[in-house]
Amino acid sequence: MTGGTTTTSWTPERRARAALTFICEPGKPDLSRLVAEQGAPAVVEALVSASDGAVWTRRARSLDLDALIARAQDIGARLVIPGDDEWPPGLAGLDRVEPVGGMCGAPLALWVRGRRRLDEVLPADGKALAVVGARACTRYGQVAATDLAFQLAGRFPIVSGGAYGIDIAAHKGALTANAPTLAVMAGGLDEWYPRGNTKIFEQILDQWAVISELPPGMRPTRPGFLARNRLIAALAAGVVVVEAAARSGAVNTARWAGALGRIVMAVPGPVTSGMSETPHRLIRDHEAELVAGADDVRALLCDPGEQPEPLPSTPARLLDGLDPGLLAVREALPGRGSLTVDELAARARCTSRTCAGALVELELLGLVEQQAPGRWRLSRPARSAR
Amino acid sequence: MTGGTTTTSWTPERRARAALTFICEPGKPDLSRLVAEQGAPAVVEALVSASDGAVWTRRARSLDLDALIARAQDIGARLVIPGDDEWPPGLAGLDRVEPVGGMCGAPLALWVRGRRRLDEVLPADGKALAVVGARACTRYGQVAATDLAFQLAGRFPIVSGGAYGIDIAAHKGALTANAPTLAVMAGGLDEWYPRGNTKIFEQILDQWAVISELPPGMRPTRPGFLARNRLIAALAAGVVVVEAAARSGAVNTARWAGALGRIVMAVPGPVTSGMSETPHRLIRDHEAELVAGADDVRALLCDPGEQPEPLPSTPARLLDGLDPGLLAVREALPGRGSLTVDELAARARCTSRTCAGALVELELLGLVEQQAPGRWRLSRPARSAR
Repeated sequence: MTGGTTTTSWTPERRARAALTFICEPGKPDLSRLVAEQGAPAVVEALVSASDGAVWTRRARSLDLDALIARAQDIGARLVIPGDDEWPPGLAGLDRVEPVGGMCGAPLALWVRGRRRLDEVLPADGKALAVVGARACTRYGQVAATDLAFQLAGRFPIVSGGAYGIDIAAHKGALTANAPTLAVMAGGLDEWYPRGNTKIFEQILDQWAVISELPPGMRPTRPGFLARNRLIAALAAGVVVVEAAARSGAVNTARWAGALGRIVMAVPGPVTSGMSETPHRLIRDHEAELVAGADDVRALLCDPGEQPEPLPSTPARLLDGLDPGLLAVREALPGRGSLTVDELAARARCTSRTCAGALVELELLGLVEQQAPGRWRLSRPARSAR
Repeated sequence: MTGGTTTTSWTPERRARAALTFICEPGKPDLSRLVAEQGAPAVVEALVSASDGAVWTRRARSLDLDALIARAQDIGARLVIPGDDEWPPGLAGLDRVEPVGGMCGAPLALWVRGRRRLDEVLPADGKALAVVGARACTRYGQVAATDLAFQLAGRFPIVSGGAYGIDIAAHKGALTANAPTLAVMAGGLDEWYPRGNTKIFEQILDQWAVISELPPGMRPTRPGFLARNRLIAALAAGVVVVEAAARSGAVNTARWAGALGRIVMAVPGPVTSGMSETPHRLIRDHEAELVAGADDVRALLCDPGEQPEPLPSTPARLLDGLDPGLLAVREALPGRGSLTVDELAARARCTSRTCAGALVELELLGLVEQQAPGRWRLSRPARSAR
């Protein structure tokens, strides 16, 4: 219970940075430099007293900073700024990178909610793993993301967004492993977006932390998502794209990762799946390394000579989300040996056709395999753990 | 009907090379050089008259060459040797390459059966495409191999072995497209191995050609398969590994291709599939380029600036092999628009559970896709043609 009980000292610098998170859109290349040169209070002062009536000036004049800070305190959000012990060092790279899509610049401050300090969630060696991908991912992508995060979060804390699909699947894997995960939101931390993921967000902040560059009260916007992607890439040592269609926000995160010199990785999938188009394109064009499992990620992220710890095997809890029909077929398989589809259908009390369909799904999820053509068995743990 | 009616002139050199295909195992590094230096008749003479009683001498003395030639003529096989118009120039590379697994050397001669001359099957620019992979491939691999061969064989003739699985799936794709395909066998051309593929072998030789380094009467051996793999790699400009387990003959073919400077390619698949382990390993270790479809292969094999011809779309005949239950579900989908699983199940006259299972299989085969979560439609031709 360290993070939540930290008392923030609202120095003029911290107050000014809080104000700037409200006044200015994130990712503006010049702002970060201006603040570094003049100090945040001077920049706020200049904006308030400017005579040109530009958007930032209007927003600066309309801001009730004390109300904003009170609102943040109400929801248990605090402001972390550069120089604080828990400020993530990886963010500094954003001040040295070429703009991506017209954006760059380290954030001026981060709003943080959660049980832990940021430096408790993110490792001292900076080796977090971002897991990103499509909202409308397939079950295959979901399993791959959850499994990677489950196996790796103990060594490489997970960083992702809050979207449906791959983001949430990755957080679930880390939560299941009781290992650190950080959700980076594109809007203020007082309202969850999307609402459907509220339960997961609350689990994340109960144990770890949720952050945003934007103050309470701000709704996510499209530029906000793009700016958010740069934080995900900067906070991690490597970014894995699990599934993403040809046009996807994950492409933007991968570009940020490449620009920042992070290791870009991608999970292959069926070539018939539109959701594997971006991973395949990134690998094909040598913009990403292929990772077929946690071992491959670890080999890329570990220091040379680092002794790899054994990976946990795929959790039984992955089965929790399984369709009851699939679960029935899987549970009808014996612990040792194999069965034909007909034998298995009789045991699972379903038709052979239903059973065959279930087996195809279970095979895709890595939960069953063919011992020989037409004879099915449970996957060996070693294989399902990949 | 050119190849089958060519009258072979049995010169002493040709007769001696025919004899050596019987006497010596293929792929012996020194033999090819010895024959080049001394001429084949002198090498045969030396083997026959050697006093050390080694295996090759015993075999040389036991050979009834006239009977061997008569047997070949009975089955319509002829011998093609270096210097013949139809000798594939790509084989010369085998005399310049470092040994792979202790083997190398261009073949001394090729036994050929089929309607066409080898230079009619293989293109003058040497740009054939080898498609190789596992016998025990999945349906996904089968579809990928057939589809690649179907789309590419018109520009890049297909070269493969004769095994079940990927080899035969590739030949089927080329045959369906009425485009050239060459089967390279590891045993004599009088007995088909495996027998189960006889119908396909006969289709290939009715239209194109089947070749072997071994004379009629020889059964395939394990070293024979490895030696055969070097021919597949040498005859092609590029080799695609579609599916292969960690230990697979396709690994050997890929090594030959790498050693020969051919373009090595691999098709990704689900990371949960053991059959995609070798393709993923090759891509991950940068030993192969990822190819997600015919366009990717073409981009790697075409000359810079070559105008790509449009690819044919996936043949309706691919549907011929489909399970009737799957076909019923696919045919229940409307030409435009989408349906829910329940609507589709009612149309296909099956349970929703059966329908859902069928949809997963059909999605994996690239034949259907989700328009939105839970709403299914036929794949757009552009996607199913990838």
